[in-house]
Amino acid sequence: SESIRLAVIGGDGIGPEVVAEGLKVLDAALAGTDVTVEKTDFALGAAHWLETGEVLDDATLERLRGFDAIVFGAVGAAPGDTRVPSGLIERDLLLKLRFSLDHYVNLRPSLLPAGVASPLAAPGEIDFVVVREGTEGPYAGNGGRLRAGTDAEIATEVSVNTAFGVRRVVRYAFEQAAARPRRKLTWIHKTNVLVHAGRLWQRVVEEVAADYPQVAVDYLHVDAATIFLVTDPSRFDVIVTDNLFGDIITDLAGAVAGGIGLAASGNINPDRTAPSMFEPVHGSAPDIAGQGIADPTAAILSVAIMLETLGQAEAGARVRAAVAADLATRGPARSGTVATGDAIAAQLAARAQ
Amino acid sequence: SESIRLAVIGGDGIGPEVVAEGLKVLDAALAGTDVTVEKTDFALGAAHWLETGEVLDDATLERLRGFDAIVFGAVGAAPGDTRVPSGLIERDLLLKLRFSLDHYVNLRPSLLPAGVASPLAAPGEIDFVVVREGTEGPYAGNGGRLRAGTDAEIATEVSVNTAFGVRRVVRYAFEQAAARPRRKLTWIHKTNVLVHAGRLWQRVVEEVAADYPQVAVDYLHVDAATIFLVTDPSRFDVIVTDNLFGDIITDLAGAVAGGIGLAASGNINPDRTAPSMFEPVHGSAPDIAGQGIADPTAAILSVAIMLETLGQAEAGARVRAAVAADLATRGPARSGTVATGDAIAAQLAARAQ
Ligand SMILES: CC(C)[C@H](C(=O)O)[C@@H](O)C(=O)O
Ligand SMILES: CC(C)[C@H](C(=O)O)[C@@H](O)C(=O)O
Repeated sequence: SESIRLAVIGGDGIGPEVVAEGLKVLDAALAGTDVTVEKTDFALGAAHWLETGEVLDDATLERLRGFDAIVFGAVGAAPGDTRVPSGLIERDLLLKLRFSLDHYVNLRPSLLPAGVASPLAAPGEIDFVVVREGTEGPYAGNGGRLRAGTDAEIATEVSVNTAFGVRRVVRYAFEQAAARPRRKLTWIHKTNVLVHAGRLWQRVVEEVAADYPQVAVDYLHVDAATIFLVTDPSRFDVIVTDNLFGDIITDLAGAVAGGIGLAASGNINPDRTAPSMFEPVHGSAPDIAGQGIADPTAAILSVAIMLETLGQAEAGARVRAAVAADLATRGPARSGTVATGDAIAAQLAARAQ
Repeated sequence: SESIRLAVIGGDGIGPEVVAEGLKVLDAALAGTDVTVEKTDFALGAAHWLETGEVLDDATLERLRGFDAIVFGAVGAAPGDTRVPSGLIERDLLLKLRFSLDHYVNLRPSLLPAGVASPLAAPGEIDFVVVREGTEGPYAGNGGRLRAGTDAEIATEVSVNTAFGVRRVVRYAFEQAAARPRRKLTWIHKTNVLVHAGRLWQRVVEEVAADYPQVAVDYLHVDAATIFLVTDPSRFDVIVTDNLFGDIITDLAGAVAGGIGLAASGNINPDRTAPSMFEPVHGSAPDIAGQGIADPTAAILSVAIMLETLGQAEAGARVRAAVAADLATRGPARSGTVATGDAIAAQLAARAQ
């Protein structure tokens, strides 16, 4: 029998609500197997910061390293909450975890499920995965302000890109593409303007591509990519891109593929030098928190990615099948967080019999 | 009688084709008025560079300063054309003009015309304008590469943002918002990650907002903005954002509002210290160049923005009305560049009688 040691960070707003359903479904997926899950809750987020003045202290970060995986909800206080500095929790908790635990792959699949409406009139078949770089680019936090607050202020943001960092994520994306039936990889950047980073990305893509002759490679500027995401999303199979472009296009991709309430992600450390972390793409949505109406599907699908990453591919597939079955019959009427978690768990129980 | 001295840069690919129709419609719009147009062609672009090795020499740039306005087509060689370094013409011609002529406002209206299909199932009323900063941000060209071509390479891109630069474009956007019926301004950034530039933008928006109490202000992260652009585009009235975010969201906005073939723009120097420049948002589309099938509507609508900017608001409105009339009756069958220009010019002629 195997045991998964799981750290749980519900976070703020709807985070804890959707994570609870993810864990419910996780239990249902593993019922009847010899895999057990040992969960440890971490009360991190805006509320924790308001109480303690700490976002994520070193000791907690070290403890988190000891787990097999982390399930993450969402963080961020309400925009109107002036007690919490804008972006503080996002940076010092979420991004700190991604960087410290070397989550260099941010894996974000987009799949428009049967029975789910897209905002597009003719979405076609949407089934692609974005491999977003997670540990460098404009997210490095470099830059600063000079003469802040004056008419002569200058503020810089430095995007940091390394051959080391680009190569490992590009290689991961080629592996993904090689394992999929269409074997197509689109890399996205803005090489005509961001020439320095663009040339590095281009060189690395070309070098890695030589090892994958079976994968067809194409390139799109990020602006053009957003057009294709709404006019022809089925052209995409695997996308690889930098941290910021990946942030932007995965929100758009989520919206197009049935809504951000379905968009799951894995912050993955493929080298397993630290635990990977699984989270819905959506935010903490303070406006609907506490009402029990948030859609937990993205959190549940993030658990499926976790199972696959932890070598429990069958259990992951069961979760996906249960979600698909639920979505096909859900209808627009149901909107309860717990009801949705229950329905998906019930799908799993029914399949187990 | 008044004369407009116009510099014409057709550029590459479909650029000259669509610009020819823009000028045809310009003539039709001014026929019967006492405004004359004196056009001077500039053969700049990839072909010019291949012939001469110059993209834009100092003398030509100085000559361009003497005109009242510039009409610009599109630049950029075919992606497969290895003779032209990727992005060279875009940077050393288009961006050099925007920066040298201090086009700090890149004005990009999005309006879904009657009779035109959107890729969205339920687009609603789309009528907003993006005020994109044009002279700083990640487009500043700062950054570089260290140990290029090695495994230890590092490449940086530096986004440069100044109080001076942000304030003038934000003020312009507030002026636009104050003059529109809905009086709403949305500023878009990624303040939770790009904190340095984000704080500068936030401070400036708050300071300028104090002068416009009648304008309702809201803020969106750029990733969330892409979601709203496909789920609820009618929420937008005036958007103000930085150079790179503006690049991305205006392509998406163009796609949503009937296609990038309709998206017009003005690179505007509101202080009139140099000529403004008017161009379609689309690129040079080498794949369809020379076939006479490119849609010239974006170039024609860019001429409308030019007329408005040059104080010929009535003529600009006539062009818009002619385009709207043509779009309402065009049907999906017509796809000829010249035929579309002719039809719109004919609409203008019919109205003049
Ligand atoms: C909350 C924020 C820092 C985060 C990001 O920008 O990566 C979010 O938008 C995401 O996509 O996971
Ligand atoms: C061609 C390119 C440099 C340009 C830009 O990025 O600004 C284009 O995409 C645009 O939007 O006008």
